[in-house]
Amino acid sequence: MPETRRIGQIIRLKPECLQAYKDCHAAAWPAVLKQIKDCNISDYSIYFDDRSYTLFATMKWTGTDFEADMESMKANPEVRRWWEMTDSMQETLVDGSTGSTDSKGWWKDLEEVFRCE
Amino acid sequence: MPETRRIGQIIRLKPECLQAYKDCHAAAWPAVLKQIKDCNISDYSIYFDDRSYTLFATMKWTGTDFEADMESMKANPEVRRWWEMTDSMQETLVDGSTGSTDSKGWWKDLEEVFRCE
Repeated sequence: MPETRRIGQIIRLKPECLQAYKDCHAAAWPAVLKQIKDCNISDYSIYFDDRSYTLFATMKWTGTDFEADMESMKANPEVRRWWEMTDSMQETLVDGSTGSTDSKGWWKDLEEVFRCE
Repeated sequence: MPETRRIGQIIRLKPECLQAYKDCHAAAWPAVLKQIKDCNISDYSIYFDDRSYTLFATMKWTGTDFEADMESMKANPEVRRWWEMTDSMQETLVDGSTGSTDSKGWWKDLEEVFRCE
């Protein structure tokens, strides 16, 4: 029985990386986009706040095994290459995290306090 | 021809209002929820960051006249009563805004830098 989760996450963008971050996301690698879909993630958006330099991501996951989907994401070498690039443009808000492949995560997961489907 | 917009917004929550904010959103008024749907908004979530006390909202609008939908939202007295309550719990990040009924908006709209449907 598939279930749906909505995920909200934040991270800080390094100010000097703003244009490069926008550019690479405007032309995201097809293998990365395919892996996102293969992991049952949809409606994935990243928003940018120009005052706090915070990036805010939201996505919807609909599947049967969230952990397995996240593992297959991590196992994809193209995704890891993408993360190597994007991690270097960001400053995590997760204490002690070393990067996107760390089990702590690189983006900080937020609590959902309201939902209206 | 209907079009779709994805909206991402932020606002600051007053620390002393955290529990009240969660409580009222866990039991949002039916008239407010109905108005949201009547305005062609779906997938509306609000996330909370416990470090910066920032609220992040995302929603999807699919319709033919965004401005008209927002006007009908503003015209609903129950929505205005709801906003009176929630505005008082928040600190806007929009310079010079006086509240949710102000044309500037009370929540700050963010730039979308990535989307994967």
